[in-house]
Amino acid sequence: MRHQSHDSEIINNLDDLYVYTKEKLQDKSGVITIHFADRPHTYTKNDVVGNCLQEWLPEWFQHIGVTLTPTEETQKFPDFVAHFEGGSYDVEVKAWNVNASPAFDIANFYSFIDTTYEHPEKLNAVYFILGYEPRREDDLERGFVVRNVYMKRIWQITGPKHKHGISLQVKRGQPYALRPIGFHRHPENAFTDPVAFICAVHNAYKQFYSAEVKTICTPDEWKSCLLKYAQNNLM
Amino acid sequence: MRHQSHDSEIINNLDDLYVYTKEKLQDKSGVITIHFADRPHTYTKNDVVGNCLQEWLPEWFQHIGVTLTPTEETQKFPDFVAHFEGGSYDVEVKAWNVNASPAFDIANFYSFIDTTYEHPEKLNAVYFILGYEPRREDDLERGFVVRNVYMKRIWQITGPKHKHGISLQVKRGQPYALRPIGFHRHPENAFTDPVAFICAVHNAYKQFYSAEVKTICTPDEWKSCLLKYAQNNLM
Repeated sequence: MRHQSHDSEIINNLDDLYVYTKEKLQDKSGVITIHFADRPHTYTKNDVVGNCLQEWLPEWFQHIGVTLTPTEETQKFPDFVAHFEGGSYDVEVKAWNVNASPAFDIANFYSFIDTTYEHPEKLNAVYFILGYEPRREDDLERGFVVRNVYMKRIWQITGPKHKHGISLQVKRGQPYALRPIGFHRHPENAFTDPVAFICAVHNAYKQFYSAEVKTICTPDEWKSCLLKYAQNNLM
Repeated sequence: MRHQSHDSEIINNLDDLYVYTKEKLQDKSGVITIHFADRPHTYTKNDVVGNCLQEWLPEWFQHIGVTLTPTEETQKFPDFVAHFEGGSYDVEVKAWNVNASPAFDIANFYSFIDTTYEHPEKLNAVYFILGYEPRREDDLERGFVVRNVYMKRIWQITGPKHKHGISLQVKRGQPYALRPIGFHRHPENAFTDPVAFICAVHNAYKQFYSAEVKTICTPDEWKSCLLKYAQNNLM
C-alpha cells in the first residue's frame, strides 16, 4: 500500500513520516482559539496547547495520507497503530512546552507492566513528540511555535540517573508514571538500548512489588518475557 | 468590594455568580479551533473541549468583574480563590460531556486526605461544573453547546452507593481518585450532608490504610479534624 499525500510526497515507512513531519511542522506557528458567549480567548497555556496538538497530529497524519487505526479504548496505550508497506507500528503522540522540562506521562507504571507483558511488541512503540514554545504575551498574534519534532523509542526518552534507577514519578511511596528525561538537551542520559531499559524497569518493579498491588505478572516473569522479545526483535 | 461586570450586573457573592453564569452560558454554543501548518481543525472531542472550557471559565469570571487569585501550584486543589464582599471561596472548575456520565477526577484520594487535613476549610470548596454537548458531526458549524451550569459542594456530587461506600476509582487495589456520581440525573444519590461524606471518606481510608502509603494523618485523625471543622462551620 502506497501513501500519497496531498502534495505528492511519498510516505512509505516511519522514517519517511518523521522526515516529512519535521520538514512541514518545525518552526511553524499556530493559534488555538475558543469563541464562546461573546468572549473569544486564545490559548497559550501548557495543558491546552499540548492536548490540542496531541489531537491535531493524528488528524494531520491522516490528512497527509497515512492509514491509522485508533486503539479501541481511549486512555489505553498506544494512541493508534500506523500502517505502512513494511509493517504496522504502535504510535504515541506527545507534546510539551520546550521552555520547561518534558513532564508528560509516558505511561502509568503498572499499566505499562501489564500491557507490555501481554503485548511485548508494544515495547517498540514509536513516540512522535512535538516541542512547542508559547508565544510571548506581548505578541500581536499570540499562539505557539513548534520548535522541534522528535521520533523516539521509550528507552531513548527515559534514563537511569534517578533515585529508582529509572525516571519514575513516585507518589506516597507508590510508583505512578514513567516520565521522560530531558532527552532534548541530554540524549546521552537516556538508556543505551532496550535491554538496559528492561533491566531498569525490572529493578524498579522489584523495589515496589507487594501483594497489595494487583498486577498480572511477577517482576521476574515480566523481565524474562520482555528480554525474550527484545533479543528476538530489537537487537 | 463591589464587582461590576461589563453590562452592569452586580455580583456580590457566590449565589450571584452562579445565577449570572447560568443565565449567560446555558444553551450558548461555542467553537474551539486550531490553525496550524495550513490545517485548521475544530475540536469536538471530549478531552480538548473540557480542558478548554476549564481554562476559559476563570478567564470569563475575571472578565465579568470577579477577583480571582490562582492557587500557587498548578495541579493543586483548588484551581483558584474567588473574593467577594462577604468572604473568599475556594473554587474548582470542571466540564464534561453531558451525553456521558460525569467522569472527571474530583481529586486524587490521598491528595484530598492530606490537603483537607492541613486545610479543613477546603472541604467547603465550590465546584462550578459545565455540562456541554458536542455538536453532531453533520452540523455546519461544529463545536459544542453548554447545556447546564452547576454549582455544587463535594458531598453533592459524590455518593454512598458504591463498592467502597463512596464513588471512588480504584486501580490495582489502590484508591486513585474521587469521582462524581450522575448528580445531573440523580441528585438524590448524593450524600445528604457533609458529615455523611466525611464518614464515608473515613471508612474508605480505613479500608485502604497501610504502612506502605505515606500520608500525613491516620484515618481517625483525619475524621476528627474534618468533623470538627464541619460541625463548627457547615452545620
